[in-house]
Amino acid sequence: MTHQTTSNIESMARRAKEASWRLASLGTAARNRALEAVLDSLTACREAILAANRQDMEEAARLVERGDLSAALMKRLDLSGDKFTAVLDGLRDLIRLPDPVGQVDLATRLDEGLELYRVSCPIGVLGVIFEARPDAAVQISTLAIKSGNAVLLKGGREALRSNAALVEAIRAGLAKSEVPADAVQLLTTREEARAMLALDPWIDLIIPRGSNELVRSIQEHTSIPVLGHADGICHVYVDAAADPEKAARVVVDSKTQYPAVCNAAETLLIHKDRAPRLLPILAEQLQKAGVELRCDARARQLVPGSKPAAEEDWRAEYLDLIISIKVVDSLDEAIEHINRYGSHHTDAIVTEDGRAAEAFFARVDSAGVYQNASTRFADGYRYGFGAEVGVSTSKTHARGPVGLEGLVIYKYRLYGNGHRAGDYGPGKRGYQHQPIPREKWRI
Amino acid sequence: MTHQTTSNIESMARRAKEASWRLASLGTAARNRALEAVLDSLTACREAILAANRQDMEEAARLVERGDLSAALMKRLDLSGDKFTAVLDGLRDLIRLPDPVGQVDLATRLDEGLELYRVSCPIGVLGVIFEARPDAAVQISTLAIKSGNAVLLKGGREALRSNAALVEAIRAGLAKSEVPADAVQLLTTREEARAMLALDPWIDLIIPRGSNELVRSIQEHTSIPVLGHADGICHVYVDAAADPEKAARVVVDSKTQYPAVCNAAETLLIHKDRAPRLLPILAEQLQKAGVELRCDARARQLVPGSKPAAEEDWRAEYLDLIISIKVVDSLDEAIEHINRYGSHHTDAIVTEDGRAAEAFFARVDSAGVYQNASTRFADGYRYGFGAEVGVSTSKTHARGPVGLEGLVIYKYRLYGNGHRAGDYGPGKRGYQHQPIPREKWRI
Repeated sequence: MTHQTTSNIESMARRAKEASWRLASLGTAARNRALEAVLDSLTACREAILAANRQDMEEAARLVERGDLSAALMKRLDLSGDKFTAVLDGLRDLIRLPDPVGQVDLATRLDEGLELYRVSCPIGVLGVIFEARPDAAVQISTLAIKSGNAVLLKGGREALRSNAALVEAIRAGLAKSEVPADAVQLLTTREEARAMLALDPWIDLIIPRGSNELVRSIQEHTSIPVLGHADGICHVYVDAAADPEKAARVVVDSKTQYPAVCNAAETLLIHKDRAPRLLPILAEQLQKAGVELRCDARARQLVPGSKPAAEEDWRAEYLDLIISIKVVDSLDEAIEHINRYGSHHTDAIVTEDGRAAEAFFARVDSAGVYQNASTRFADGYRYGFGAEVGVSTSKTHARGPVGLEGLVIYKYRLYGNGHRAGDYGPGKRGYQHQPIPREKWRI
Repeated sequence: MTHQTTSNIESMARRAKEASWRLASLGTAARNRALEAVLDSLTACREAILAANRQDMEEAARLVERGDLSAALMKRLDLSGDKFTAVLDGLRDLIRLPDPVGQVDLATRLDEGLELYRVSCPIGVLGVIFEARPDAAVQISTLAIKSGNAVLLKGGREALRSNAALVEAIRAGLAKSEVPADAVQLLTTREEARAMLALDPWIDLIIPRGSNELVRSIQEHTSIPVLGHADGICHVYVDAAADPEKAARVVVDSKTQYPAVCNAAETLLIHKDRAPRLLPILAEQLQKAGVELRCDARARQLVPGSKPAAEEDWRAEYLDLIISIKVVDSLDEAIEHINRYGSHHTDAIVTEDGRAAEAFFARVDSAGVYQNASTRFADGYRYGFGAEVGVSTSKTHARGPVGLEGLVIYKYRLYGNGHRAGDYGPGKRGYQHQPIPREKWRI
């Protein structure tokens, strides 16, 4: 990495930090006005953005022809048609969402005139590394502004021109508001992204949006906290007490409704007592939907002609119309399998037995644990969060679909009257530790 | 690192993970019963533990004599006298605290029969690296059990025998309960601690309790999330609108009430309009309390005979009766100084001006922001949390004094009835997204 790059990125990060301090002092209305200005600017720059996007698309078409890019990835690059309108609609929805900043979730009177409040506040500067979809640049920047954070963005190589045009429009909008334009900045090279990962005094949280390999590689190269938006190896377990019809609905929807995403199921586990009658039916329905089955030995006996599953199938994220199937002896075996091979994303049990469901909920170590519902519901929009940063498989800070809440932390405010800690202790004053009723809050 | 160590630690971590799954399925009562068993076992093993501690103390005395250990550190090692009783009392208090696990903080009806709950749950396996104080071994293990987590502990070399005796007693207690003894395990060498930092499939959170260098070195050597319990460079800013008496109380208490800890103040900032009359008074009171003053040029003119402050003084954590003093032109300059040189721990403003306080609260990027109160209040016990893991200067997950809440995360439970995601969308079913009233919760 050249010294030039490092010092250039450090200067960008420094300006982002300063912008974040300014942002932290703005109220809800000022941040929403800035988002309105961004909306106006994006609307005004529509043609320029779409022209840049067309150039990216032409380049991508050449790559696809040469076999250097997948057609699916190229499709995600496209901003034309309804895509751009959807981006603007999303921003309008975001502006209407409640402010995640300034929420009080603890108010305690420590003593007369000594009041403690825990108040949500922005995290500071986010470093976001995302792949392909250029609309993510808008979503992420505006989620950041809404939650009072500055952001350094690094998009995919294929979307370079689109991202540049979008970020230029966003910054032009911000320039007309109280939010400094430097609250949103774009990195363009991989070298710059690497330099960013080393800037832990300036960057507070790294959010990778992309493949498991991207997330893992970032985690290994930074000491900044990473909010891991990984892909998913999701399971459906059909319990001994499963309702056959619900099992079919949940299994087929989990696998086939949109196989290319992280909340699609990759493995079906089925209890040995339920398998003989139910597995052939499930297999038939999956096969009708075009799904390839990869079965363990016991499942193969029940599904003649299916392919055998190898050890690596239990760890595979197919993102395709393929499912691995295993017959298990017990709920315990199912839970152990999920905790061992899964990615702690979302796993479902199909059962009419409430106690089995409770055991599954307590012991399956995943962000989402479902009874009789498709794993495909794991999504910020479906959960009612409105806007989503991504789905986190981290075990700290924020887990599962992450909305605006995942982009804030809190600070403790203490209001005193010249209070000294030395006046409290054995034989001296004691603490009251009384909750302060809402109508008496200072905030 | 030898292969032996790695595989040994991996096997310990694996057993801890299995213990954590078991723990996650136990209710409040079972976890509290396990803590009662630990309490009984510690009580029964008191003599053996104190004997081990005396051996550590003798060894430490030799090190102090040779100048290889500080007397302060040796004092913190001592478990005799009231120390052991205080440990048991702390455990009794912990058992009585509310369960942080199983708390529902979001309940949404997505559609008829499709209910989403966000429920707090243990994080999993904690890796805790702590220095000197062996009572921390008990505090941390029991906080972990209370919150449903397993823990791998690595204590300081000086407390080796004390920690071994304590952990042996804790495990003997657990063995009589439903919690597996492997929920608490002790690492003894630095090599083992290093091996632990690489076990990210098994360890979910690393908690270093010790110096800034320890925290930083750990952050650089692991891709596991770190809950940073760093030391503190805390500031008191005496504003133009400060009340002189409150200023004196807050400054003197913040600096002198217990200078050796992270929430003691290291720097005094004072507004140029207040400095001429107030700084000489504050300086006199600090000097009376034995504090050495290190002043910038303007402050030195007001405090004749004081030492000059160098650039490194603004970044110094003295942990001693020394304070750096700077005259600032404005609130803005004070805030900038704090954000630039501080450690984002706890910073106080002394002012009667509510708007100045609000600006300070919004823009100072610290876990604690105080008006007219001593920085020394930054502490879990004083905040009313009962038990404390430490003070976090992280910007994610948990910030400030961290109680049991910092040791839990949440999972989303979704209860359905065979619901398919494919049934929702434009022209199909819509989502209700209605909050579920508490009396109708399933949990």
